[in-house]
Amino acid sequence: MPVTHSPEQTIPSDRTVRLLDTTLRDGEQAPGVSLSPDEKVEIARALERAGVSVIEAGSACTGAGERQAISRVTDLDLEARVTSFCRGIQSDIDLALECDVDGIHLVVPASDRHVEGKVGTSREDNLEKTAELVSYAKDHDLWVEVIGEDGSRADLDYLETLMETALEAGADRTCFADTVGHTGPERTAEAVSRLAELGPVSAHTHDDLGLGVANALSAVSAGADLVHCTVNGLGERAGNVALEEVAIALEHVYDVETLELEEVYDLAQVCSRATGIPLAPNKAVIGENAFTHESGIHTDGTLKDDKMYEPYEPETVGRERRLALGKHAGRAGVKAALEEHGVDASDDEVADIATRVTELGDRGRHVTDADLLAIAEDVTGTERERVVELVDIAATSGGPIPTASVRLDVGGEERVASGTGSGPVDAAVSAVREALGSAADAELESYHVDAVTGGTDAVVTVEVTMSRDDRTVTVARSEADITRASVEAMVDALDRLLESDRQALAMADD
Amino acid sequence: MPVTHSPEQTIPSDRTVRLLDTTLRDGEQAPGVSLSPDEKVEIARALERAGVSVIEAGSACTGAGERQAISRVTDLDLEARVTSFCRGIQSDIDLALECDVDGIHLVVPASDRHVEGKVGTSREDNLEKTAELVSYAKDHDLWVEVIGEDGSRADLDYLETLMETALEAGADRTCFADTVGHTGPERTAEAVSRLAELGPVSAHTHDDLGLGVANALSAVSAGADLVHCTVNGLGERAGNVALEEVAIALEHVYDVETLELEEVYDLAQVCSRATGIPLAPNKAVIGENAFTHESGIHTDGTLKDDKMYEPYEPETVGRERRLALGKHAGRAGVKAALEEHGVDASDDEVADIATRVTELGDRGRHVTDADLLAIAEDVTGTERERVVELVDIAATSGGPIPTASVRLDVGGEERVASGTGSGPVDAAVSAVREALGSAADAELESYHVDAVTGGTDAVVTVEVTMSRDDRTVTVARSEADITRASVEAMVDALDRLLESDRQALAMADD
Repeated sequence: MPVTHSPEQTIPSDRTVRLLDTTLRDGEQAPGVSLSPDEKVEIARALERAGVSVIEAGSACTGAGERQAISRVTDLDLEARVTSFCRGIQSDIDLALECDVDGIHLVVPASDRHVEGKVGTSREDNLEKTAELVSYAKDHDLWVEVIGEDGSRADLDYLETLMETALEAGADRTCFADTVGHTGPERTAEAVSRLAELGPVSAHTHDDLGLGVANALSAVSAGADLVHCTVNGLGERAGNVALEEVAIALEHVYDVETLELEEVYDLAQVCSRATGIPLAPNKAVIGENAFTHESGIHTDGTLKDDKMYEPYEPETVGRERRLALGKHAGRAGVKAALEEHGVDASDDEVADIATRVTELGDRGRHVTDADLLAIAEDVTGTERERVVELVDIAATSGGPIPTASVRLDVGGEERVASGTGSGPVDAAVSAVREALGSAADAELESYHVDAVTGGTDAVVTVEVTMSRDDRTVTVARSEADITRASVEAMVDALDRLLESDRQALAMADD
Repeated sequence: MPVTHSPEQTIPSDRTVRLLDTTLRDGEQAPGVSLSPDEKVEIARALERAGVSVIEAGSACTGAGERQAISRVTDLDLEARVTSFCRGIQSDIDLALECDVDGIHLVVPASDRHVEGKVGTSREDNLEKTAELVSYAKDHDLWVEVIGEDGSRADLDYLETLMETALEAGADRTCFADTVGHTGPERTAEAVSRLAELGPVSAHTHDDLGLGVANALSAVSAGADLVHCTVNGLGERAGNVALEEVAIALEHVYDVETLELEEVYDLAQVCSRATGIPLAPNKAVIGENAFTHESGIHTDGTLKDDKMYEPYEPETVGRERRLALGKHAGRAGVKAALEEHGVDASDDEVADIATRVTELGDRGRHVTDADLLAIAEDVTGTERERVVELVDIAATSGGPIPTASVRLDVGGEERVASGTGSGPVDAAVSAVREALGSAADAELESYHVDAVTGGTDAVVTVEVTMSRDDRTVTVARSEADITRASVEAMVDALDRLLESDRQALAMADD
């Protein structure tokens, strides 16, 4: 079935649009984010793989460490142009030159609030100063983009004069900046179309009103050919417009290619790890749930036809589709999940199981594989004998050698073992592995503790995903004691992976 | 300074636009989200305070628990219209009637993919069935909105015929649904303007391409007067368009009021707690950082003029402005933070401190109050004597009575105490309080453990904020052992709160 778009697109598919990424500058200005030189290099490489045209690597005036980081990025000799942010001060340009950047973003005030209130100059003097700084930068062979700070709150006549002055002094391009995320698509289009008459123009949009993407597209339709973005929409306040959203919107709606989209998810993960800012589960393109279907209607539809509830294939952006269990799972979803775990159930049994999954969800619970299997065993009357059960656990922590001991019931036989680790949970996990020998040869795919906020007596939810051969199982446990919650979840997961395997276990060495 | 908008807005300020919230239905369909009846009631009350016009309380066909929850919401007798989602099946309407809802959203397939592939009917039969179901619902005195599922991928001529049929059968309004988040503002405007010719029309947009808000505004400009949203943009896949973003964009850019905006932050927190989905720090309006300034330029500007780097006052949406420390803090930011902690420093010292804060940030570290104060002491040469120091800690966990003991150095005197708690950290905190007596009378404002994902030996970062009288201090510690990290952070915070208070401490009872 062909994708049907409107006959009159405001951005024709033959437009050339390139993306500038400022994760390393505006993104790093997000509260709580600091990047080391190694992290900046890793992100720059990932940006290069994704094919961005310009990488703003930092702000050279910030300090010696920052300059070292920018130099590390320029040393990579990337295809992308590497630049630095510069305030309207000659020494900032000198510092950028020290880092051997290809170009700069010269930020000069555009609104009266910034011209007079912040910089303390006049409209007239600001024009002169801008021309002087642009000439200085061009004399030093820099590519120069002039950003009119707070352009969206500026008198557009003055903004136009300012940018005209910059271009006449030799600037390569100008940039319309909605610095404080104040404006909408109409004013963006009006301003950008006026600047586009003068020369090449970029757009710099923020998301304070949720309009980051709308304004970026409006700028492109009005003539902007370079869009400033950050990965995951990081940045000051509500952040800049997200790179991955601008790229997918331009490609899917307007057939305008800007990036190697299949690299975008890896890029987002690199940035999330380095910045410590998680990817929101419901974030477009890169969020954990962006290609996950849970509700019965959606799962059922997706099982019939992948495209039923997806605008484009997850593989387009380097991802995979996922079907999840939950309150709204419905029969088709439950049946698919049971098949994945090798459980046979009649249609009536599936219907009963689906009802009970819904009931569990109605109590506000996230339904895991272990919950589903426990319900299935109950409904189908196939009582499962546990192979491994946690009887007792003791752990000491705080001291120099965190130590733990566990008592397990393994097929009726008691096994006691101890272990050490980097903390009490790690020590307890060692003890479990010691007790089970090769029977514990399963991969811990992920270990996730839900962020605890509040008091030290808050309940912690631990979710572990373990795999053995081609089976994967997820188990969650909530308790006030993180050690007990972790070990119970892990032993339960191991038990489920081992149940088809009792014989092997009986023979396992201790 | 007046807000300057474009002279030609596509949405005039005299337009009446209302918001429908579907957090309790489409929001709950987000993977991993389940809401109990109590949670649904709490969210419904918060939605009513925020002033939404329609609350879609759930999908009556999901099960008995869901119907009980919907009934609990209808029983609240809210100003808002309370509705249920219904598939194109008469029994779904009967189940909605059981819950005593004011109205329904009747979802019928609109695209060929959904008409033929999903429902397995024909365009013609679908028209007949729709008319029949609308008549049935109207006969039962329901307000009826007909949603054409996957409308954005439908043949617009057929969509128009389908909706015309629905209105002729008595439907109160139709809805253009971009069910899979597939389309852009142009096609949205085209479709909505055609439906608006027929009667009242709503818009239902998703954010898979980052275009949720752009499409919602485009729909409004084309004639839609009711917009479907969810709090925090929860929902299937990348989620629905965010309620708070649509509301602030309409109010700030177009002067169209839709909500009691100052209730929005409280609403978002209620929903985040109930669903377990955190608010992304860089989310517009409701994210932790939406009104936080860290970089030197922004902090400096904001200290001169609140509006320098903000599109609107944080109080507009029930929030407060925050200045944060960090790598880009700069002198003005550092000076403001030092003043808050009562530290005197000369201009030269402030400059030195700012440089060292930046250096710390360059190593990838989030800079806390404790870091700032440690640097300040070093630079100003006022060596601080620690009042309380953690010497040793031991904790046992896993067993029935988590127990911990600590050895503290309190002004040269050794104090040992033990305590029990709900887990090892809680027990250790009791032990510290026992050792310090009334000197530990500080409030634990927040205790936050960074989500751990990966292996059980991963480093955990614990951040505690404690306050005593009018001072507040934040300290972070990263270690593999969560117990030690927690107690070290807490003792350090207490120590900083107590330093001006040695005398009192010496006299404190054990």
